[in-house]
Amino acid sequence: MSDSVQRIGILGATGYTGRELVRLLVRHPAARIVFATSESEAGQPLRAIDRAAPDLTLVHAAEAPLGDCDVVFSCLPHGLSLEWVERAVEAGPRVIDLSADLRVPKANAPAWTRRAVYGLPELHRESIRGARLVANPGCYPTAAILAVAPLARAGLAGTAPIIINSASGATGAGRSPKRHLLFAEIAEDFSAYAVGNVHRHLAEMRYQVGLAAQGKAPELVFTPHLAPVRRGILQTTYLPLAEGVRPADAIGLWREAYANEPFVEVLEDRMPTLRDAVDSNRVSIGVTGVADVEVPMLVLVAAIDNLLKGAAGQAVQNMNLMCGLEETLGLPC
Amino acid sequence: MSDSVQRIGILGATGYTGRELVRLLVRHPAARIVFATSESEAGQPLRAIDRAAPDLTLVHAAEAPLGDCDVVFSCLPHGLSLEWVERAVEAGPRVIDLSADLRVPKANAPAWTRRAVYGLPELHRESIRGARLVANPGCYPTAAILAVAPLARAGLAGTAPIIINSASGATGAGRSPKRHLLFAEIAEDFSAYAVGNVHRHLAEMRYQVGLAAQGKAPELVFTPHLAPVRRGILQTTYLPLAEGVRPADAIGLWREAYANEPFVEVLEDRMPTLRDAVDSNRVSIGVTGVADVEVPMLVLVAAIDNLLKGAAGQAVQNMNLMCGLEETLGLPC
Amino acid sequence: MSDSVQRIGILGATGYTGRELVRLLVRHPAARIVFATSESEAGQPLRAIDRAAPDLTLVHAAEAPLGDCDVVFSCLPHGLSLEWVERAVEAGPRVIDLSADLRVPKANAPAWTRRAVYGLPELHRESIRGARLVANPGCYPTAAILAVAPLARAGLAGTAPIIINSASGATGAGRSPKRHLLFAEIAEDFSAYAVGNVHRHLAEMRYQVGLAAQGKAPELVFTPHLAPVRRGILQTTYLPLAEGVRPADAIGLWREAYANEPFVEVLEDRMPTLRDAVDSNRVSIGVTGVADVEVPMLVLVAAIDNLLKGAAGQAVQNMNLMCGLEETLGLPC
Amino acid sequence: MSDSVQRIGILGATGYTGRELVRLLVRHPAARIVFATSESEAGQPLRAIDRAAPDLTLVHAAEAPLGDCDVVFSCLPHGLSLEWVERAVEAGPRVIDLSADLRVPKANAPAWTRRAVYGLPELHRESIRGARLVANPGCYPTAAILAVAPLARAGLAGTAPIIINSASGATGAGRSPKRHLLFAEIAEDFSAYAVGNVHRHLAEMRYQVGLAAQGKAPELVFTPHLAPVRRGILQTTYLPLAEGVRPADAIGLWREAYANEPFVEVLEDRMPTLRDAVDSNRVSIGVTGVADVEVPMLVLVAAIDNLLKGAAGQAVQNMNLMCGLEETLGLPC
Repeated sequence: MSDSVQRIGILGATGYTGRELVRLLVRHPAARIVFATSESEAGQPLRAIDRAAPDLTLVHAAEAPLGDCDVVFSCLPHGLSLEWVERAVEAGPRVIDLSADLRVPKANAPAWTRRAVYGLPELHRESIRGARLVANPGCYPTAAILAVAPLARAGLAGTAPIIINSASGATGAGRSPKRHLLFAEIAEDFSAYAVGNVHRHLAEMRYQVGLAAQGKAPELVFTPHLAPVRRGILQTTYLPLAEGVRPADAIGLWREAYANEPFVEVLEDRMPTLRDAVDSNRVSIGVTGVADVEVPMLVLVAAIDNLLKGAAGQAVQNMNLMCGLEETLGLPC
Repeated sequence: MSDSVQRIGILGATGYTGRELVRLLVRHPAARIVFATSESEAGQPLRAIDRAAPDLTLVHAAEAPLGDCDVVFSCLPHGLSLEWVERAVEAGPRVIDLSADLRVPKANAPAWTRRAVYGLPELHRESIRGARLVANPGCYPTAAILAVAPLARAGLAGTAPIIINSASGATGAGRSPKRHLLFAEIAEDFSAYAVGNVHRHLAEMRYQVGLAAQGKAPELVFTPHLAPVRRGILQTTYLPLAEGVRPADAIGLWREAYANEPFVEVLEDRMPTLRDAVDSNRVSIGVTGVADVEVPMLVLVAAIDNLLKGAAGQAVQNMNLMCGLEETLGLPC
Repeated sequence: MSDSVQRIGILGATGYTGRELVRLLVRHPAARIVFATSESEAGQPLRAIDRAAPDLTLVHAAEAPLGDCDVVFSCLPHGLSLEWVERAVEAGPRVIDLSADLRVPKANAPAWTRRAVYGLPELHRESIRGARLVANPGCYPTAAILAVAPLARAGLAGTAPIIINSASGATGAGRSPKRHLLFAEIAEDFSAYAVGNVHRHLAEMRYQVGLAAQGKAPELVFTPHLAPVRRGILQTTYLPLAEGVRPADAIGLWREAYANEPFVEVLEDRMPTLRDAVDSNRVSIGVTGVADVEVPMLVLVAAIDNLLKGAAGQAVQNMNLMCGLEETLGLPC
Repeated sequence: MSDSVQRIGILGATGYTGRELVRLLVRHPAARIVFATSESEAGQPLRAIDRAAPDLTLVHAAEAPLGDCDVVFSCLPHGLSLEWVERAVEAGPRVIDLSADLRVPKANAPAWTRRAVYGLPELHRESIRGARLVANPGCYPTAAILAVAPLARAGLAGTAPIIINSASGATGAGRSPKRHLLFAEIAEDFSAYAVGNVHRHLAEMRYQVGLAAQGKAPELVFTPHLAPVRRGILQTTYLPLAEGVRPADAIGLWREAYANEPFVEVLEDRMPTLRDAVDSNRVSIGVTGVADVEVPMLVLVAAIDNLLKGAAGQAVQNMNLMCGLEETLGLPC
């Protein structure tokens, strides 16, 4: 294990994900923040985000000393991130992109983007260790892929689509002021959105489930919801089993798959709630069979913190792996 | 239309459902509360529940003048309700039972219980009009049956199970003090319960869907969730279609089925949120097709107020029908 | 009592106050909305605000047929409202201004503004009845003035300042998207603002308390807070008594002052909470003496709904008075 | 500094305070939990409270090996705690009592209770260092005393009473199931309680303010409120100044008093909100003068986490002092 301190740059430090990343890295024993950028809050002290932060001032991305870092994180918005990630890659440091820009290989994408490794350690740990560029998974996909992959990999998924019904807290929708995100709108409400398989995270889920399936992948139907909580994703997943497979044949797959994972717990006798995962980098999972249906089905409930395992926490987990540090270093468990 | 004022008795007036019923009936232009019972709050004034209530004192059920009423509502707990409903029926008035005791016909049940009509006006309006005894539907079943019945009736449901993923506010869990219902437990949390098709409301859903299907009914998989809101149910329903049926063939079923329903709206261009239904007796529905799946599927989102269309409001709607009053009388729309 | 239907115009119908006003007037038995304006949502149907609204389209203020109305309400922002109120006054109808522009007489203000009557019926009912132009009180001032006026009028206030400690729900801060009003910011938080007597509502409170005192008015110290609720104001008021006055001498003042008020209740044996007032046009008040202090003091707790008695409800109460209608008509109590 | 690991016993580990204490001590680098008791959950694993806890089983207090510890914490209910604290003291370890039983000296109290030191480090650090028995302050008193003491000590408080207006989250009311603490009751509500100076915490505030004043102490008027948040206390304090004292003379007192305090911050240019203190052991303070009043007054806003600086965090701070450890060890800042 290397124990040298990594010099860190953060592109886009003032959204909810960027702020969470600052909080983690400020307390990380092997990290030192060298710069942090914000277009809207440039000139403000980093300590406005975290009292324990070093005495730095937020700068514009254009002023960021990319080459002075060992690791650069980009929390820039989707679309905008790509250009800055390219600059960072060229400047030398390892790069972890928290945007969606590099998560799914695209035809006609520039050659350099092919070096991006999908940063879900439970599936791609070894590739991440050797990576110079990591595409950090989305929050919904993290929960969805970890729920579906063991079944897909075992080839036990049925032909009916897997239903992924997820609810996220409001930090998942970002820190930009929008009317539908006001307290007076969200409190005492609950809503579905992107209904009918039209959420942009689906491609990412499908691609990774396809890799896990190594052949015909199960179909996915995904519906995100906005819940009146600040953080966390609770995902209820309906997993039809292949013909002839009984619940008892498949129910142990997750425990087996994640037996040695430091950030996945499979509960024995109950389903997780948001509280099992919020403020930790943990994925908490419960699985059960479905009574009284002809075609066997499992229901899996998973909880994560959308800002930690769903974003900044997983990014730090990836940094730890890329830099040869202890994987759990600096992460709340 | 009769416009005589109905004399009303309420058994169990101090739970969340009972209180909501008091509030509705106090403002109902053709109702006059004659008695209201509470074992735990007997001796308290009815005005402690609603400032506009008549000057009555809550009494024990044993003291209730059942025979002095035209209509008796029972909001007593499941199990306990049956005995009091029987007494009320024998005493003469029309009876509306908000408990689950009479919703599903049971083998070996006493003969008198067979007279109970299931009080979902959108499916059984004519029977309700002539009924002396109505079993008022459960909150989850109201939303579930109204979502599934048009498809089941048309025979267009596929062979894969229908997934009913519901989230309810905390009033749905009752007013008895329990630790897991404390504010400090529920705020910022979200949880699934009765996962794996083990909720007692399933029998009621299945029975009514079976009646609607008039033959082989689609299978149901139901997962309730507890959301950190006070009232309301949001239900996300996944409806696989029969082979060869395209979404466009089925998507109009709900608009057609509910075209003349005073308390059902089918939205055209968006999905409902809790706010579309809370504080009204409305069921608000949105339907859409699912992109990119082999076997066609619809997703239907429905919102109701668990205390109104899911309980007390529907009970008053039933009373209006039973008593020959305007169906919408005294109900918030 | 006149029972002719009033033709109503609403300037600024899409803020939280405007929307609440639409909801009240749509259900008001003696009102008919003739136009409603919105600069940001012009072209949208009024029914997007309320399903029961007439089939009207929101128009720009510049297109509003001011002269076709009996009553025009302005819910326009402070500062902007003045100009439109002037136009409305000139066009003929009675006008109720919900902005702060006319609540406190200003030196050098145009002559026409002097006709504005302060629309707090409990203090100025007779003037309101004859008014053509009413300045509708602010939400915080409504609660504050009703709490302080009986003591000030009786001349029993002490020399130490009256402390008015108020907490308001988020709708009080408006519907414009601002970061500090996001759900993710307000949930699980609670904050004071405008600390140190710098809130602009103070002038309004002082002016009215001064009128009530008819001489030396007690000093006021006012601190507003933002509470994580959607609606409602809870005000805790510390009322030092004049030398020689005992709590028992003053504690009956509010019951006496508001004995015949349809929208003020003085509780006997407990303090009100938000829930006593939210969704009604009621002011709910509790008063008690303070134990173990040398100089006698009362504490008065008051609850109102900031959008009803604190804004739209009171505006309708004023309309009822101005138009010779029953004062409580169309108002939830 | 000693760096030996302290053996810890916890009496009453399953209330909100006890659970928070478990979480802190599990992560404390110089603590090892030896036993934890619970009458209601005896037999359950300690890991049900915290995944990182040692492999212990909750026992009944009667079975607790008091003598095997270096430090025993009592989180038992007021009244019940006294007896167990006495047993623990007799058994040898240092004892920290989080109940109210020993906070205020009582006439006729047993001799042993006189050894209790009031555990507010900012006022009594040296006594705490040498103490064998500490009475850990209440949550409201911690915020109140830290707000008032600097002014009282400087002799600059006026003759009018100091108003302490506080709002606490629901964990402050305990984990026992009570109807008024249900989510469905507290959400969207806000309430005052113990209005009129009748809260039992007042004696504790008065006693400590009296000590700080070293002579005539200012009078206190205290009103607690219940806010719809899980944790935190926000306190708005109205501080009348002595005749002739201007705000500018007194406004610097808090910065001066707490200049070297590791857990008190005095903000320069804004008032704290709950978020400044929740999840930390910090007291966050802002002070400002009051405009436009004759007798000068300051308003001080303070935020603490009721479970940390208001209970378990302060208890650990006291343990650190008593055991010669770094004062901030194991505490979130």
